[in-house]
Amino acid sequence: MAFDRLISGIIKTQNPTVAGLDPKLDYVPDSIRNACFEKYGRTLEGAAAALLEFNKALIDSLCDIVPAAKPQAAYYEMYGWQGVRALAETIAYARSKGMFVITDGKRNDIGTTMEAYAAAHLGKTSVAGESVSAFGADALTVNGYLGTDGIKPLLKICAEEDKGVFVLVKTSNPSSGELQDRELADGATVYEQMGRMCESWGEELRGEYGYSAVGAVVGATYPAQLGELRKKLPHTFFLVPGYGAQGGGADDVKNAFDERGLGAVINSSRGIMCAWQKQGLAHEDFAEAARAEALRMRDELLGAIGNIG
Amino acid sequence: MAFDRLISGIIKTQNPTVAGLDPKLDYVPDSIRNACFEKYGRTLEGAAAALLEFNKALIDSLCDIVPAAKPQAAYYEMYGWQGVRALAETIAYARSKGMFVITDGKRNDIGTTMEAYAAAHLGKTSVAGESVSAFGADALTVNGYLGTDGIKPLLKICAEEDKGVFVLVKTSNPSSGELQDRELADGATVYEQMGRMCESWGEELRGEYGYSAVGAVVGATYPAQLGELRKKLPHTFFLVPGYGAQGGGADDVKNAFDERGLGAVINSSRGIMCAWQKQGLAHEDFAEAARAEALRMRDELLGAIGNIG
Repeated sequence: MAFDRLISGIIKTQNPTVAGLDPKLDYVPDSIRNACFEKYGRTLEGAAAALLEFNKALIDSLCDIVPAAKPQAAYYEMYGWQGVRALAETIAYARSKGMFVITDGKRNDIGTTMEAYAAAHLGKTSVAGESVSAFGADALTVNGYLGTDGIKPLLKICAEEDKGVFVLVKTSNPSSGELQDRELADGATVYEQMGRMCESWGEELRGEYGYSAVGAVVGATYPAQLGELRKKLPHTFFLVPGYGAQGGGADDVKNAFDERGLGAVINSSRGIMCAWQKQGLAHEDFAEAARAEALRMRDELLGAIGNIG
Repeated sequence: MAFDRLISGIIKTQNPTVAGLDPKLDYVPDSIRNACFEKYGRTLEGAAAALLEFNKALIDSLCDIVPAAKPQAAYYEMYGWQGVRALAETIAYARSKGMFVITDGKRNDIGTTMEAYAAAHLGKTSVAGESVSAFGADALTVNGYLGTDGIKPLLKICAEEDKGVFVLVKTSNPSSGELQDRELADGATVYEQMGRMCESWGEELRGEYGYSAVGAVVGATYPAQLGELRKKLPHTFFLVPGYGAQGGGADDVKNAFDERGLGAVINSSRGIMCAWQKQGLAHEDFAEAARAEALRMRDELLGAIGNIG
């Protein structure tokens, strides 16, 4: 129920990290790229094959120490439907290795259309009486600008199929405040109002750790708001981007956690994927470098929050 | 520049309509479905092939009288990467028939990731020195909750490649007011603030009709707000969903237009795709029924707003 599976994985690995899989072709070593281009040509198909192979090597290297993976849909869509096939195969591969997979799609629409997104990314699609899984992640990031009827179709699938969503509340980017920090007439900010809506949407969907299936995206780059929201949203699990490449550190994210060291999962994408550069290793050693960086990040986070669970 | 190509098409056809291509498998006649299932099995591939054939017949039947098409990404993602391939092929086919294609994806993310979405849906992707078009629509719907740096990467492509975006401002769904109608401390509502941001984002990107490349999504189901926003956002072209199946009529949408009959394009999805039901025709006659409904809708809109241009 809710994020219990994710939380169990975090406790088991003592690691509140999600590895962002946002693979640009530039991140893939020449040896993989060239082999794929040779096989499929310098085409979207060749590029997508290279991304998938890169991802699989990362997943193999991380799956026993990092409990979750977060592929970012944009980096797959960029390579056309061939890239989107690589997304589907990445999700399936990471899940087969025991990782909790969050598709970062920030999807949003009105009710009837949101049903289609919910079926696509978390549920099943009916094809002539057969129930088929299209992408089948464990959780999906969504944008709540449209209000309750854009979220409701997701709640049904969360309840029935043990899935979760993360709603954008306070995003990590520099201009996030332009709308999100605006003060409403009642004194709350727009992001606080969005946070309240998350608590309310998740009310019937709480799991054994007290967190509901409706989580929130709150950026590491705004540590004060992160701490404030942790207190105000006691049943809302946080997905925290912005650690590492965007500037957030362990001290910035520790406010995202409750006294048990639960309540949040911290994303690192480029930090893990491109760790070989930082460690002065050869590009070909990207998978080992990613593992070393994931262990370093785990230790840094545990140093700030203590043991988990 | 900006939406000039769309506006020229609207003037030429004297029809401010965009045909929503949101094909559920149930909308596809048995004859097409069965042929595709026979060829590809009762699989996502079979379903996607049926959607594409359905879309192509609709496009053939509409392209000389309806200037634009709006495929809704959710209904393709629902059928997996195979469905997403049908989306890419639908976009290419509609463009080859002279239609202006708006991908309705409501995409949103931070700057670096939005660059990937912009390349995916409007621009080009670089693959080993080759520039490849992944989806290549003329415009994309986006969600501005993240503020300026989630929009900027799109503006560059709009300027360089003659593309447009539509930002969600006031959506057509019943619960859209939960966040969007909230009053800010300065007296404006959240949707008005979003509208102001559209005017500002589009400032450098105005075309010959006075409208910029940054449009807004404003629902037909809120006619008062539609009229109010038309006055307040004189350079922002509107994409108006909610006509027909969601309850909006010609009188509701006429406020979306300026005195020249320009300034908006009205979407009809189910109204056109499922017109055969309303007209008491056989399912197989869906394409002719869609054309008859598109002509009826055009006449209804022209009756309300007068000649265009």
